[in-house]
Amino acid sequence: MSDDIKYGLAGVVTDDTAISKVMPETNSLTYRGYPVQDLATQADFEETAYLIWNGDLPTAPQLADFKTQEKAERGLSADLLAVIAKYNRDAHPMDTVRTSVSFLGQEDPETEDSSPEGLYTKSIRMLAKIPEMVAADYRHRKGLAPIGPDASLGFSENFFHMCFGEVPAPAVIKCFDISMTLYAEHSFNASTFAARVIASTTSDIYSAVTGAIGALKGPLHGGANEAVMHMLKEVGEPANAREWMLTALKEKRKIMGFGHRVYRSGDSRVPTMTDAFKAMVDIIDTPEAHKYWEMSRILDDTMVEAKGIYPNLDFPAGPAYYL
Amino acid sequence: MSDDIKYGLAGVVTDDTAISKVMPETNSLTYRGYPVQDLATQADFEETAYLIWNGDLPTAPQLADFKTQEKAERGLSADLLAVIAKYNRDAHPMDTVRTSVSFLGQEDPETEDSSPEGLYTKSIRMLAKIPEMVAADYRHRKGLAPIGPDASLGFSENFFHMCFGEVPAPAVIKCFDISMTLYAEHSFNASTFAARVIASTTSDIYSAVTGAIGALKGPLHGGANEAVMHMLKEVGEPANAREWMLTALKEKRKIMGFGHRVYRSGDSRVPTMTDAFKAMVDIIDTPEAHKYWEMSRILDDTMVEAKGIYPNLDFPAGPAYYL
Repeated sequence: MSDDIKYGLAGVVTDDTAISKVMPETNSLTYRGYPVQDLATQADFEETAYLIWNGDLPTAPQLADFKTQEKAERGLSADLLAVIAKYNRDAHPMDTVRTSVSFLGQEDPETEDSSPEGLYTKSIRMLAKIPEMVAADYRHRKGLAPIGPDASLGFSENFFHMCFGEVPAPAVIKCFDISMTLYAEHSFNASTFAARVIASTTSDIYSAVTGAIGALKGPLHGGANEAVMHMLKEVGEPANAREWMLTALKEKRKIMGFGHRVYRSGDSRVPTMTDAFKAMVDIIDTPEAHKYWEMSRILDDTMVEAKGIYPNLDFPAGPAYYL
Repeated sequence: MSDDIKYGLAGVVTDDTAISKVMPETNSLTYRGYPVQDLATQADFEETAYLIWNGDLPTAPQLADFKTQEKAERGLSADLLAVIAKYNRDAHPMDTVRTSVSFLGQEDPETEDSSPEGLYTKSIRMLAKIPEMVAADYRHRKGLAPIGPDASLGFSENFFHMCFGEVPAPAVIKCFDISMTLYAEHSFNASTFAARVIASTTSDIYSAVTGAIGALKGPLHGGANEAVMHMLKEVGEPANAREWMLTALKEKRKIMGFGHRVYRSGDSRVPTMTDAFKAMVDIIDTPEAHKYWEMSRILDDTMVEAKGIYPNLDFPAGPAYYL
């Protein structure tokens, strides 16, 4: 009986989405009709979030309102901060943020409100609070007290402030902000699919996002940018990079950050992210930053030369996040 | 373009499972070839869990070993108990158990071990610890200190001990144990599907179970037995039951606990669960217990008479869990 089964869901269309459009023919990606490269460079992440949720780019007053709403939803409860202080310092960061979002869900008295307005408010709530969950956990691992949000700062600046207690150079902020836009939407990926399966039972939005974070963790999905950084650390030095890649190809090892299930001849998000990574490297200007930049260039060139396979978004995003 | 899409996954076969077999033609369900009615009445829940995970019923020494392993994995960390003490007393219990399992995942130093042995150990760990998560949360809501596990008690007895500080009559234990067996497996339901989507990214088992709990919460899935109890409370008295049902049918209201996506002429798990519910009612012997029993009978008879639609497992399980 099981001989008749086409295992997995490759090629099965289960639903469509009006939010983003992945076009493998032209290796391009649009959100609500706008190419992501344009959004990443010309809009900030808050504008992109507004666009994705509302269907149109905001007017200036709409954007100001949206930013005010996001700022008003910032701040974690004392209970959640106490829970974060109990986290295992060696845990995978996706396991702790998954736990924090789940805690937020049980804490929210409006969890079960699934009206469009209720879901919109809770989406802004998660947008506003998840960065602080990540930042507080990051500092907890280093034995440092959490730093609360600063309402004078935008989304990306505030994230750095809560992580490090300072706001870095604009090129660094912009690099992070670009990555947020480029990663914001990709139609029916595994984490979105997990969220939709959960929501299909009419469970609540926090349950759906908690499940999505669990899916995003996997090395075959969102965990890939982390895996790229593990690879760069293994390579060690730019001088080893070409040889490392050729050996890895010869041994048919799995190489992270190259190729894509959908894009076959280059991921349109890569040039924008690579430019932002380079701009950040130049501003940081440390030997380590230049090392990872050079190593990336050599690995990329070697792979394209040897196999004609192009890097995906995780390839520049991995070292950019690390730095 | 979207005109071509067959929305949803109804009728799409994505994989098969060797664990359970749902046979709509005969309204029957087997686990590894054994009818669930036989397992529910003749085996205990630990034997059923062993069967599902190992493929065969255990020998006496294998079962003894399994029970020893389960007992050894019982007990929550002081950190997790402290987190439970911070839970919102009005939260949905599925939101808090989801958070507890997520916390357990970040706490476990072996989270990423996905070897068959590692997954088996973590499965026993969750089997052993989830009841205490539920019991501690239940007591927290009542302002009571948690009660730790008792290694002299079996799985179902221990759960009552941790909830109430005492072990009820054998008929009550057996009713609960039967429900655990009847709910243990149902091939490709929504929560299993959510878990498999998450696991497909090679994320970890706690992420998969956390997502599955989120899916199971939904009123269109596991939340249905809770919804049955809300319905019984709304009906109020056996004397109202027939009229309530006829009015609800006339008004085309959604009636919980009847019909099934797969079983069209009766769910094979219902007679076993109904018998166990009745045995428990007779032992408890309170006016409330008899009231819910009588009300259930009238609602069931009225629905079958008016529409020919049979109750599903959630119909007897809802009031049994409540009592």
